[in-house]
Amino acid sequence: MSVSLYALVLAGGSGTRLWPLSRRESPKQFLGLCGEQTMFEETFRRLARRTPPERMLFISSRELEGDVRDQLRRSLGDQSHVCRVVSEPLGRNTAPAILLGAWIVNSVDPEGILLSAPSDHLILEEEVFLNGVDCSLPAAMDKIITFGITPTRPETGYGYIKVGEKKGPVFDVARFEEKPDLEKARFFLEDKRYLWNSGIFLFGVKNLLEEARRLVPDIMSLIETVDPGTLDGLDRAYARMRSLSFDYGIMEKTTKAAVMPLSMGWSDVGSWDSFYEMREKDSGKNVVVGDVVNIDNEGCLLMSNGPLAAVTGMKDTIVIQSEDAVLVCPRGQSQDVRKIVDTLEREERPERLVHPTVRRPWGAYTVLIQKGRYKVKKFVVEPGQRMSLQKHQKRSEHWVVVKGEILVTLGEQQRILEANEGITIPIGTVHRIENRGVDPAEIVEIQLGDYLGEDDIIRLEDNYGRTTG
Amino acid sequence: MSVSLYALVLAGGSGTRLWPLSRRESPKQFLGLCGEQTMFEETFRRLARRTPPERMLFISSRELEGDVRDQLRRSLGDQSHVCRVVSEPLGRNTAPAILLGAWIVNSVDPEGILLSAPSDHLILEEEVFLNGVDCSLPAAMDKIITFGITPTRPETGYGYIKVGEKKGPVFDVARFEEKPDLEKARFFLEDKRYLWNSGIFLFGVKNLLEEARRLVPDIMSLIETVDPGTLDGLDRAYARMRSLSFDYGIMEKTTKAAVMPLSMGWSDVGSWDSFYEMREKDSGKNVVVGDVVNIDNEGCLLMSNGPLAAVTGMKDTIVIQSEDAVLVCPRGQSQDVRKIVDTLEREERPERLVHPTVRRPWGAYTVLIQKGRYKVKKFVVEPGQRMSLQKHQKRSEHWVVVKGEILVTLGEQQRILEANEGITIPIGTVHRIENRGVDPAEIVEIQLGDYLGEDDIIRLEDNYGRTTG
Repeated sequence: MSVSLYALVLAGGSGTRLWPLSRRESPKQFLGLCGEQTMFEETFRRLARRTPPERMLFISSRELEGDVRDQLRRSLGDQSHVCRVVSEPLGRNTAPAILLGAWIVNSVDPEGILLSAPSDHLILEEEVFLNGVDCSLPAAMDKIITFGITPTRPETGYGYIKVGEKKGPVFDVARFEEKPDLEKARFFLEDKRYLWNSGIFLFGVKNLLEEARRLVPDIMSLIETVDPGTLDGLDRAYARMRSLSFDYGIMEKTTKAAVMPLSMGWSDVGSWDSFYEMREKDSGKNVVVGDVVNIDNEGCLLMSNGPLAAVTGMKDTIVIQSEDAVLVCPRGQSQDVRKIVDTLEREERPERLVHPTVRRPWGAYTVLIQKGRYKVKKFVVEPGQRMSLQKHQKRSEHWVVVKGEILVTLGEQQRILEANEGITIPIGTVHRIENRGVDPAEIVEIQLGDYLGEDDIIRLEDNYGRTTG
Repeated sequence: MSVSLYALVLAGGSGTRLWPLSRRESPKQFLGLCGEQTMFEETFRRLARRTPPERMLFISSRELEGDVRDQLRRSLGDQSHVCRVVSEPLGRNTAPAILLGAWIVNSVDPEGILLSAPSDHLILEEEVFLNGVDCSLPAAMDKIITFGITPTRPETGYGYIKVGEKKGPVFDVARFEEKPDLEKARFFLEDKRYLWNSGIFLFGVKNLLEEARRLVPDIMSLIETVDPGTLDGLDRAYARMRSLSFDYGIMEKTTKAAVMPLSMGWSDVGSWDSFYEMREKDSGKNVVVGDVVNIDNEGCLLMSNGPLAAVTGMKDTIVIQSEDAVLVCPRGQSQDVRKIVDTLEREERPERLVHPTVRRPWGAYTVLIQKGRYKVKKFVVEPGQRMSLQKHQKRSEHWVVVKGEILVTLGEQQRILEANEGITIPIGTVHRIENRGVDPAEIVEIQLGDYLGEDDIIRLEDNYGRTTG
């Protein structure tokens, strides 16, 4: 008997624990923390080594769906449509998301095995992970397998799994443990029978759904009202859905739980401290990423994807410089970034909770300056992409192409603009930019008007199905 | 007998000890560290309370002359030409500069009293300072008076003066002391007869020049070859001039030295540490300036004139965020900024040693982005000012007026551009911007070309006597 492996990628998480790099609208799965690729892209690429894209399913939120499709387009180009992307109308934690994924896979292949993984975790030792998946597969039809990570430090930020007896390739779960205090975490590390709970699961969909009908019948009965092909009924079902984690709702209650222990260099990158733990250190135990001058520091995390960060004489300190804000705090206290984000919320400074560089399905834009009645932006329009046919009611725009060439629609006219050519878009005039070339095109835009909010946009036609925002 | 008081302002200092706010081309006298006004402007305003502008003389360098004139224009407007600005061809420390100033004043009023002051020091208690000047005046014809500051901490960064007997309104100088070690500095603070050497001097010009002829005859004989009206001979004299400080060359050797002790909240702002010492602290002993989120910090200097600085849980730390770089170092070690500047020099990253916002006689510009073949700048042209008539050989420019209106010369044509209007300047076309309005005009400029250096500029005519740069 041959089974098919499917992948479910959870990509709806949003958060600001890695502020100022992660923002409300730019959660950490879409950050390139360790290089060119985002954690989402890394996750996709890793899973694609075992599952073809047409057997991948992505569950995200309405707000982030555009980002997910954009990320897939970056990996797959024109083929990205073969991946199924489902957007939850509301976040209801992992149990409804994973069960919805299983429900959809079940509708096409009840014998399928599903590997469910968050899109915002790092796995340094990919071969160990893939080998762990391969070895677990024979047990996955009957068991609900969670991947447990061998602890490398007395971490108080993760849940733990106590390993029981070996049963074939996997182990029984003796017990789930909540996040421990430091003393308990030290004991777990010493004891060796405790593993970190990674949130990566492997199961046969039919088996899981049966178990779920027994353990969380209210959730399952709502899921079963959703058409797995058209998703008709999804909004109605989610409106009545309770929020529940897969660990709490399924794993801790089922008798079918099993665990596969792995040492694969895993991190949930839940804080700057855990990012520091993961990364290779220099001789001064510093982690240094990006445009940094690092002189006589020790045990520091020094990072910039914006202006230069010049740090000297510091010990155990975190410095994260982004395009429009720097964070400085002691290492070990990076959870206090929460206090900063709360302060920004309270002081109604949402501009610091959104990135100056915003990805869009057609490319990205960066706000260079906004002052009084004008705003200057730089756009990148990816090859083959076009922005929506749109108009603005309160601003005029001046564009200068600085790289590549674009096809501009302005009212009834169309014309090609090359680098070093400009055009003016008067208030109220319908316009569109399209890049028919093979290279990205870059445009500098100067907006003038009494109101310059992103919501002053009327979309008459959009390739990406957007009507607002 | 009535004497006339003249003022000599030393404004040639350049330095990077307050990097990233001070840069090679933006020394600290031109920074607004404590508000809208720069230290230069504060110095001008303070001295103007005792001396009319036509009795003020500014000594600076060729590189900074434009900044000095710009600063004077900001204070005096059209009347700024009444101040005399002298540019030394080379920096030769304070003795030649002060003696040159005395030589020039002597040529118009040998009975004049000259008050010589650096332009980059802070004086919080201005009335104390001015009263000290007033009280010293009667002694200034026969003495060379230095202003001594009552120490408020065991500072190892300043030279000290040991006070001798009281002689009229001033005191004899018992001895000059080099920068002490900490133990000695503590003793000086305890002893109460020691004062900080502020570098502010008051003297009769005739008397000083006589003394200088005796003490530094080589320097005086060179100074005396310079025509004090036309400055003919200045380059030749400076080419042969040795470098010497006024303290070492004159004050420590003359029998006419006297000191006026003052407690006037003085600082040379020679480092971020001394800036911290000067400023008022919050309840956590923090000094906070600009766009900063400050949560649970203690004893920190937190400052931004650029992107947001969000700092939490730090102790005794300096965080200085500028438009294009952040400095983080422990308080008490701010002299280590030198190591960072050296590293930037060595790594040939001069862009971090020049500010993105550059003042020009006609206003200022800010580089918003520079990437590959394009650069985006924002200009402010002050009312009544105009840029030089110029052309570029390697770049075209696109302008959009975003505020105010300008008169544009383009080849043989002239036209008024209002906000929301744009124009293109092809490569090689002569052009000029003039602001004939009463409000500052703002322009966004997009440059495109193979070479975008500031030195690609041919000036055909310039209001400010510039031919390059």
